[in-house]
Amino acid sequence: MGREIERKFLVSGDAWRQGAKGASFRQGYLSSAPERTVRVRSDGLKGYLTVKGRTNGASRDEYEYEIPSAQAAEMLDRLCERPLIEKTRYQISFAGFTWEIDEFGGENHGLIVAEVELASEGQMIALPPWAGREITGDPRYYNSTLAQRPYRSW
Amino acid sequence: MGREIERKFLVSGDAWRQGAKGASFRQGYLSSAPERTVRVRSDGLKGYLTVKGRTNGASRDEYEYEIPSAQAAEMLDRLCERPLIEKTRYQISFAGFTWEIDEFGGENHGLIVAEVELASEGQMIALPPWAGREITGDPRYYNSTLAQRPYRSW
Repeated sequence: MGREIERKFLVSGDAWRQGAKGASFRQGYLSSAPERTVRVRSDGLKGYLTVKGRTNGASRDEYEYEIPSAQAAEMLDRLCERPLIEKTRYQISFAGFTWEIDEFGGENHGLIVAEVELASEGQMIALPPWAGREITGDPRYYNSTLAQRPYRSW
Repeated sequence: MGREIERKFLVSGDAWRQGAKGASFRQGYLSSAPERTVRVRSDGLKGYLTVKGRTNGASRDEYEYEIPSAQAAEMLDRLCERPLIEKTRYQISFAGFTWEIDEFGGENHGLIVAEVELASEGQMIALPPWAGREITGDPRYYNSTLAQRPYRSW
């Protein structure tokens, strides 16, 4: 088992876009129950099947397996809950940490979220100027929730 | 994607036990929704994560991935829906086909089911003398249903 410890913020402004290159992918859920989410993701080159447990604070059990991209695409097309989540992910370094910025498309268009992975809960980080309100642990912003209650329906 | 085509029967009598050797395993569900079941299985040596779509007749989309047995055991212990399914599986050859007989334990004790995998729907098979009532497609006998409504509660 891996354990994921991360903090999550809304993104304000466009300053972060300077030179950032994004990769698009689709993801969907075979289970969006908070106790046991099962996510399928494909970026066109690689596919992933990811199992996550319930979030406790900023931590969460996580198991991720690489699978053939074509199989991930089939599961997204045929099996996953609707709507799928479409997003473009940018990776940005700031003060020694790699931030992942997700710009959502489709039914979540308008939502931009930044995540940073920590080595331990409580680890200190410097916040970039474009980090807005912290949303760590807010279930409305879980991707599994956004698949059921997309941002544009709020 | 694989496609699973199988017929399923109740087992009558004990004649099938002659010389049959069984292997015990545990399995549980991360999703038991009929449109997209996600199953975790461990036999103590190997673990599997299996995604299946809705059953159409005797066919069903299926994707199976081998995963570390210890991770399967953790997911069974920590994440899967309750109750888990415990069973002993026997493989028996009859008239050129390999039959899998599942003898359930725990909350499904008393249930014994035989399955045979076909190359195509409609393929002819000889039925062994211990094959009882056919239950192909009967949702009460899906393992995902037995995890929610175990046999002993019927």
